[in-house]
Amino acid sequence: MEQFDWEQLTPGQREEVERQLAVIRRGTVEIVPEEELKWKVAESVVTGRPLKVKIGLDPSSPDIHIGHTVALQKLRQFQDLGHEIQLVIGDFTGMIGDPTGKSETRKQLSREEVIRNAKTYREQISKILDPDRMSVYYNSEWLGALTFADVVKLASSVTVARMLERDDFSKRYHGGQPIHIHEFFYPLMQGYDSVALETDIELGGTDQKFNLLMGRTLQKEYGKRLQIAIMMPLLEGLDGVQKMSKSLGNYIGIDEEPNNMYGKAMSVPDELMLKYFELATDLSNEELDALREGLADGRVHPRDAKMRLAYTFVRMYHGEEAARAAERHFVTVFQHRALPDDIEEKRIPADWLDNGRIRLTRLLVELGLAPSGGEARRSMQQGAVRLNEEKVTDVMFEYVPADGDVIQVGKRKFVKIRVD
Amino acid sequence: MEQFDWEQLTPGQREEVERQLAVIRRGTVEIVPEEELKWKVAESVVTGRPLKVKIGLDPSSPDIHIGHTVALQKLRQFQDLGHEIQLVIGDFTGMIGDPTGKSETRKQLSREEVIRNAKTYREQISKILDPDRMSVYYNSEWLGALTFADVVKLASSVTVARMLERDDFSKRYHGGQPIHIHEFFYPLMQGYDSVALETDIELGGTDQKFNLLMGRTLQKEYGKRLQIAIMMPLLEGLDGVQKMSKSLGNYIGIDEEPNNMYGKAMSVPDELMLKYFELATDLSNEELDALREGLADGRVHPRDAKMRLAYTFVRMYHGEEAARAAERHFVTVFQHRALPDDIEEKRIPADWLDNGRIRLTRLLVELGLAPSGGEARRSMQQGAVRLNEEKVTDVMFEYVPADGDVIQVGKRKFVKIRVD
Repeated sequence: MEQFDWEQLTPGQREEVERQLAVIRRGTVEIVPEEELKWKVAESVVTGRPLKVKIGLDPSSPDIHIGHTVALQKLRQFQDLGHEIQLVIGDFTGMIGDPTGKSETRKQLSREEVIRNAKTYREQISKILDPDRMSVYYNSEWLGALTFADVVKLASSVTVARMLERDDFSKRYHGGQPIHIHEFFYPLMQGYDSVALETDIELGGTDQKFNLLMGRTLQKEYGKRLQIAIMMPLLEGLDGVQKMSKSLGNYIGIDEEPNNMYGKAMSVPDELMLKYFELATDLSNEELDALREGLADGRVHPRDAKMRLAYTFVRMYHGEEAARAAERHFVTVFQHRALPDDIEEKRIPADWLDNGRIRLTRLLVELGLAPSGGEARRSMQQGAVRLNEEKVTDVMFEYVPADGDVIQVGKRKFVKIRVD
Repeated sequence: MEQFDWEQLTPGQREEVERQLAVIRRGTVEIVPEEELKWKVAESVVTGRPLKVKIGLDPSSPDIHIGHTVALQKLRQFQDLGHEIQLVIGDFTGMIGDPTGKSETRKQLSREEVIRNAKTYREQISKILDPDRMSVYYNSEWLGALTFADVVKLASSVTVARMLERDDFSKRYHGGQPIHIHEFFYPLMQGYDSVALETDIELGGTDQKFNLLMGRTLQKEYGKRLQIAIMMPLLEGLDGVQKMSKSLGNYIGIDEEPNNMYGKAMSVPDELMLKYFELATDLSNEELDALREGLADGRVHPRDAKMRLAYTFVRMYHGEEAARAAERHFVTVFQHRALPDDIEEKRIPADWLDNGRIRLTRLLVELGLAPSGGEARRSMQQGAVRLNEEKVTDVMFEYVPADGDVIQVGKRKFVKIRVD
């Protein structure tokens, strides 16, 4: 990038540059090259030209979870700083998929699937980003137009040795596992997206570093200005160990129903709580600092902090009211062990009764609270079954059910009875 | 390849198959897989369907030399056995060139250059092959039509590890020299040619083995019948060490003027003479055996054998008459040291003479037999200058030239004088 004269900025502009840099740097793992970011931002401040900030999206699994929002939150910050977002739906790249050791070429998604998934993306992403300040692209638009000759030029920009430096390729190559040649195309395609869109900054997880830097390499090869790569941390899932992912089941989806979202957030390991706050919520730097201090000096109880995390997630994706309701639900059910407000009612037909009476084990099965008589008995013996909040452990217990009786199994299953 | 029932062939057909196999095998280094060749030939004999035999040609250097004719002679044999020849002008592959360590993508030849070179090829090749039984293809026809998605499919057929087994790639990768990714495309393109043309047999030098087998791999991937790879030896050039090539200057071009061609053939090292006969001439197997025995038991003098080689080359590419003339020229000039028949005449104008006399050194320069007076003196001192077949070594020698005087420098330069 050409040199930039810091002296030509007014004091106000310099302050604005520093302010933007502070916001941009929050939570990032690495910015490559760090120095150029300053010049890009400075140039944008001076000229008023917004920076083009790109992120690539996998068109095959459009359900966004909190792990994805780490980068999306960063994009939101860029929007708030006045920059432009480029969302690239990798419908062409999706043919290959970012290589993970599978040797098969993926079945290409149909046009309809891609459009349907993109619609889902847009809806979900609009909960985080301002939809009026982002552009959605399909990379088949430019990649699908390349001829074999164009691909030759593209591939001539990079050496095999460099490609094999990529962590997963290196491991597989030296471990004797096959890498198919087309897998090399994935980073080239992703990099070429930045050429086509003249991207200034590309965002991704730390596992994307190689691909993000490929964008720089190719932009140089094609005579474009070079993008900056910003690597965000990978957020561990609810197990506290593995990267959050749908396939591992350790995720919180941003479309999840409020009570589930709240409940799942409450199971985030304590030691990850602040990381979730920093990377996946809209708390300001000041709020974050206060929380960090409070936890450190004991003024804030970890349980309360986690409830705030859960509340914040529900508020961000379902609104303030839903957040309050979810909190109330959680407190009622899990904290006070009281009955929740909205228990499902079920009808007991007359023919279940024998002289007006029914055995509780049978009732549990008929109401769907236990899969079998055996399970019903086991639950009772374990003290998991309550009738009107009283524990019942006698598996032979029979009684005359009445309207409004509440039967509870475990912490979450409730039924209110209505007798015909 | 599907099994073939040898029993369904008549005795006459079996004999024909064996005859063809004997011709095909002559001079080859390796046939892969050997067993399938038999079935292919047998099937052709039974069904009457000619085999499609392919060779790839580099469009960037259309001048054919004796080294190239090793494969072309084999193709001629296939033609004589009734099969069809596919000449593939690699105009698309030429973009890359068979990788040799150069990192640059070659400039693509213009349409005009390709067509001009192809014309040259056709003319030269027609001296060996029957032009009515060969088809000329440009591989841009099918390769230029591939999209990026097609290229992904193509590249997905082969692993990086397999590609790096190729001898030159392996050396470069492990030697830390760059291999650019597009270089991997060369074998894929050449292999895809066989897919597009449904080739039965592909011919090449031993250095082409990897590329030829790639054709099999890709044909399998694309559901085609698999070609057989026939590897021909590489012919060493006149230096007896390196592969014959234009850039090394150790070649005999098939378009060379008869006396040059004859003279160059006479400089083939004795130990390579039989290899040249076997691989690059049209001698029958019987003639070849007789020659081999004659040389072994001393009945044939090596010098005579080599003159036959030289004669044969000139006959093959310029005809019988030219061959006889070249032989006569060679015998006259080099063997008997007699004056050749066709010495150029040059006029001596009166104003070169001083009282009718001229110094010989000056005459050598004026007649273009020496570049300078100094060179003329050196040639005389070394005994390289003759006047009417008499050596003249006195650099101060002057005389009165007469019509018909012959001045000779070295072995090949002659001038006959005519005085005005």
